[in-house]
Amino acid sequence: MTTKQAGATSAAEFQALFDSVKNWGRWGPDDQRGALNLITNAKRAQAAALVKEGHIVSTAHPLPVMPGPNNPAPVRRAVLAGGDGISDGFASAADLTIVAPHGFAVSHLDALCHVFWNGQMYNGYPAGDMTSRGAEKNAIDVAREGIVSRGVLLDIPRLLGRPYLDKGEAITVEDLEAAEARQGVRVEEGDILLVRTGRRPREQGEGETLLFQGGAGLHVSTMPWIKERGVAVLGCDGISDVMPSGCEGNALPVHVATLVAMGVHLLDNQSLEPLADACAERNRWTFQYVVAPLVIEKGTGSAVNPIAVF
Amino acid sequence: MTTKQAGATSAAEFQALFDSVKNWGRWGPDDQRGALNLITNAKRAQAAALVKEGHIVSTAHPLPVMPGPNNPAPVRRAVLAGGDGISDGFASAADLTIVAPHGFAVSHLDALCHVFWNGQMYNGYPAGDMTSRGAEKNAIDVAREGIVSRGVLLDIPRLLGRPYLDKGEAITVEDLEAAEARQGVRVEEGDILLVRTGRRPREQGEGETLLFQGGAGLHVSTMPWIKERGVAVLGCDGISDVMPSGCEGNALPVHVATLVAMGVHLLDNQSLEPLADACAERNRWTFQYVVAPLVIEKGTGSAVNPIAVF
Amino acid sequence: MTTKQAGATSAAEFQALFDSVKNWGRWGPDDQRGALNLITNAKRAQAAALVKEGHIVSTAHPLPVMPGPNNPAPVRRAVLAGGDGISDGFASAADLTIVAPHGFAVSHLDALCHVFWNGQMYNGYPAGDMTSRGAEKNAIDVAREGIVSRGVLLDIPRLLGRPYLDKGEAITVEDLEAAEARQGVRVEEGDILLVRTGRRPREQGEGETLLFQGGAGLHVSTMPWIKERGVAVLGCDGISDVMPSGCEGNALPVHVATLVAMGVHLLDNQSLEPLADACAERNRWTFQYVVAPLVIEKGTGSAVNPIAVF
Amino acid sequence: MTTKQAGATSAAEFQALFDSVKNWGRWGPDDQRGALNLITNAKRAQAAALVKEGHIVSTAHPLPVMPGPNNPAPVRRAVLAGGDGISDGFASAADLTIVAPHGFAVSHLDALCHVFWNGQMYNGYPAGDMTSRGAEKNAIDVAREGIVSRGVLLDIPRLLGRPYLDKGEAITVEDLEAAEARQGVRVEEGDILLVRTGRRPREQGEGETLLFQGGAGLHVSTMPWIKERGVAVLGCDGISDVMPSGCEGNALPVHVATLVAMGVHLLDNQSLEPLADACAERNRWTFQYVVAPLVIEKGTGSAVNPIAVF
Repeated sequence: MTTKQAGATSAAEFQALFDSVKNWGRWGPDDQRGALNLITNAKRAQAAALVKEGHIVSTAHPLPVMPGPNNPAPVRRAVLAGGDGISDGFASAADLTIVAPHGFAVSHLDALCHVFWNGQMYNGYPAGDMTSRGAEKNAIDVAREGIVSRGVLLDIPRLLGRPYLDKGEAITVEDLEAAEARQGVRVEEGDILLVRTGRRPREQGEGETLLFQGGAGLHVSTMPWIKERGVAVLGCDGISDVMPSGCEGNALPVHVATLVAMGVHLLDNQSLEPLADACAERNRWTFQYVVAPLVIEKGTGSAVNPIAVF
Repeated sequence: MTTKQAGATSAAEFQALFDSVKNWGRWGPDDQRGALNLITNAKRAQAAALVKEGHIVSTAHPLPVMPGPNNPAPVRRAVLAGGDGISDGFASAADLTIVAPHGFAVSHLDALCHVFWNGQMYNGYPAGDMTSRGAEKNAIDVAREGIVSRGVLLDIPRLLGRPYLDKGEAITVEDLEAAEARQGVRVEEGDILLVRTGRRPREQGEGETLLFQGGAGLHVSTMPWIKERGVAVLGCDGISDVMPSGCEGNALPVHVATLVAMGVHLLDNQSLEPLADACAERNRWTFQYVVAPLVIEKGTGSAVNPIAVF
Repeated sequence: MTTKQAGATSAAEFQALFDSVKNWGRWGPDDQRGALNLITNAKRAQAAALVKEGHIVSTAHPLPVMPGPNNPAPVRRAVLAGGDGISDGFASAADLTIVAPHGFAVSHLDALCHVFWNGQMYNGYPAGDMTSRGAEKNAIDVAREGIVSRGVLLDIPRLLGRPYLDKGEAITVEDLEAAEARQGVRVEEGDILLVRTGRRPREQGEGETLLFQGGAGLHVSTMPWIKERGVAVLGCDGISDVMPSGCEGNALPVHVATLVAMGVHLLDNQSLEPLADACAERNRWTFQYVVAPLVIEKGTGSAVNPIAVF
Repeated sequence: MTTKQAGATSAAEFQALFDSVKNWGRWGPDDQRGALNLITNAKRAQAAALVKEGHIVSTAHPLPVMPGPNNPAPVRRAVLAGGDGISDGFASAADLTIVAPHGFAVSHLDALCHVFWNGQMYNGYPAGDMTSRGAEKNAIDVAREGIVSRGVLLDIPRLLGRPYLDKGEAITVEDLEAAEARQGVRVEEGDILLVRTGRRPREQGEGETLLFQGGAGLHVSTMPWIKERGVAVLGCDGISDVMPSGCEGNALPVHVATLVAMGVHLLDNQSLEPLADACAERNRWTFQYVVAPLVIEKGTGSAVNPIAVF
């Protein structure tokens, strides 16, 4: 297969796709958990049964404190007290961290209230329910008990025999299914699907492209497939959306289709190189996967450190 | 058994205890992970095998934004953009969170650099290695791949037939072993031990006691037992230390013995009521337990949302 | 005169007062500066001419980092880099500060967008113009060039021969005019009026009363006098409002009458003891006064360090 | 005159200059105020007497929230509560601001503890006195009563008949004195000297040069002149230092000579275009000038909104 820039999708086509994948009302008019409802106890038990070795791999980058093209508003960490001058008895150190998780740098989980489409959030709640005081609906703490399920990594660069995808390269259903076939896996209901594009921000140095100028990711045409397969959470080393999207009037159609229409949470900016290497070494692409957002009531998202267990 | 205030420990007795439980050099002169070294792949595989049902329970309180006697410097969450005025097309919401994890309110994991004793940290590193720029040694990101093991909850109030322990009530080895016996468990090497005191900050309202004025917790005499049993991480609904400590010249001797001497990380301010109820319902007190601190390089600790899986 | 708790004001009486002092439209339908419009170049030149000695006195408390009953969400200052370990050549230190100015502790200037009454701000702008992204109208930066005028201190405790007013003690027009008479001053158009109640937070220690439970301040019946005299900015060592207010359905009627109706900015939590002493020593109660809020675009207020020049 | 890049200064020459301008001990071994001591009451009274018109001009840029090459860690402003959904009675809005003042974007005042040279601060205090908990010496709050004096603007671009100086263009004593002559002013003891280079960050858009790659400013050879003239505070639309400095082993020799050797505070990133225009219109280059840093105890600097009064 070859490099594909995102094929065009008209505004009308997008709206039709949006309507076709909507899960509004599926879990009742008051639901705020969306596709997390697809993860059952049985699914979690099966996921734990995948653990053979006990090897763990995190998919989080360190909280990004260094500014850069894709990190215009860095995380800040500052010290309240250190160990300087301490020589006797008991003393303690403390610090604080300031995190605004959204964007292209922090490894984070988007809440369903993060994105609006035509003035509405997932399950039809009005955008105004995301108030100046915080989210009254669809906040990040709908996931307060944690998100634990089977994780599936679909490694697109490996499929294509390349170290990483190119700027603006769009992943299609054909790619996802070819990866499944090559890897011997099948994405199923309740899975947390991780899609690797090979993004390597830390290696890009001065030449790092602002993602909006060209990030590999999923083409919006994959959204019905995500719906059919019953993906509970979608993650990526990018932000899942291919950029540019090729979608008329919508730079992030995958965000809209997942967060708003399907109620599928998104895991952005994941560190997938170590995970991909661990999978390749073991020739297994599924694992128990634990995503534990901080319990930020009314929050729009949370930095996370998801753990894959083999 | 009856309410016991912390028995007295002299400064010399504490120093002798400290020296007797030290793990400095045990994992090499350059080690910064401490007792996390006791959690092996095999241990993690065994922990996963404990999962039968797939039921998950978080042990995190929501990030505490409301001030109170035990929360003098609350977490702050503030909105960068909400959904007000949004009616067309794509829009997104964002916020930021400011967390200083230490203290009596945030459910957090202490890094080994959080506490110093006589000018040193775990493994003999000088306190000055916790600099004004952050921790050069023993930072929270030594746990960046996550902490996954068997969790064991020892429920002391249930043992004593009471809803919660009293102010300043000290838990001894005798209590821990009686709880083991009653519950049919035995704390082993690599375990994450959670000790319930029954602390219920959210129900204390105006009468909430500042923990320093009286918090139930472990007596320092339990530290050799923690060492012998090979506990990897110690957690509590309080801060593990009983207050007052009864220990001459040291208000938090358990903090010193764990973080500094043994290299045992501490999980403070855990929400253990739901976990205790889940354990009691199932008459099982062990579970897979996943603690995933944010990867805060040079950090002194991290808010966490640990997940128990049954 | 004797201690007076706030006399009762019915909701209807308050609304009538509000309507009677409104400056909406007075400076045009697009005005956002309110009574700052009363400070002319001539007024500023006169204020500078008051300077004889060159003695300066600040009316700001240090940014309050210590928690307390009146400071539930303290200012945070944290170090980014210090001087530990520095011994050669050039090095620098840096820190950050987190300030949420409103409340009872930070010496700050309220923007006109800080308060709403029946869904409106000063000059009839809808409350919704204070959006989740910040203030579209009446933000603090309307004062970006600074507020410089004649400052007048009316010292009510000195008038009453007491060190400070009592909890909930209400100041009336009678008190203000008696203070003018005793001090030999007359509040005029364009003045920045500072009213001293003798509040001494730093001396209150553990007994410090939460201001909502009883703070001395202006009775709402003084508002027409404020309007007539043409006060441009009103300041206080408290928050100007007496608490409790005695006003039906409105805990802070002075806030509403000033910020919303008159477009008079408020200076809260000023440190007035040193200024009062300086005035008393000189037997002069007027001075050049400079208030320079940080230029926080879309902001609701700013910490300030106002300077009186004698 | 023509564009001059910074002439070379050897390390030895710099050290000799440093030693020649030191004010250590001049105001006693315990002094932390440095050249602020040169501003007397009489000086302040003279400054006030300069006010004729009452026209005010701020020299602060809005707090810079937008990231950019010279603003890698922007100020953050976020809303705690807005006016959305408010329609009845009393309600209020609030926000918070996070400011790390140092760098090339925030209009701020450097404290004397901001810079170290060979392990020392102004007046010989050890760099270690700027601890992980904050500055024990030379903090920003030495100026808590405000800094009020005669301001003098030396407009170098106007002198040279150009809109602004070029990248890396160095200002010498010859330039300063020629500006004095052209403008009919003479810098004297206790003055706050503002030097305009014509820096226009807001107009530079995408082409904005990271200042480290070339900022106009003062050549280190001007430092003895600053000492002789008795400048109390030095300010600039840049950061005073020309970059590159041409000084061996020291990128910011003016910072070192002022903050460390002379105890002269620095005002960085000032907005001088409006002030220069106001001066030119009036053909007067002196004015009363008020700089009021927030009272940040132990702080390394403060965002400020200085006001010039004509």
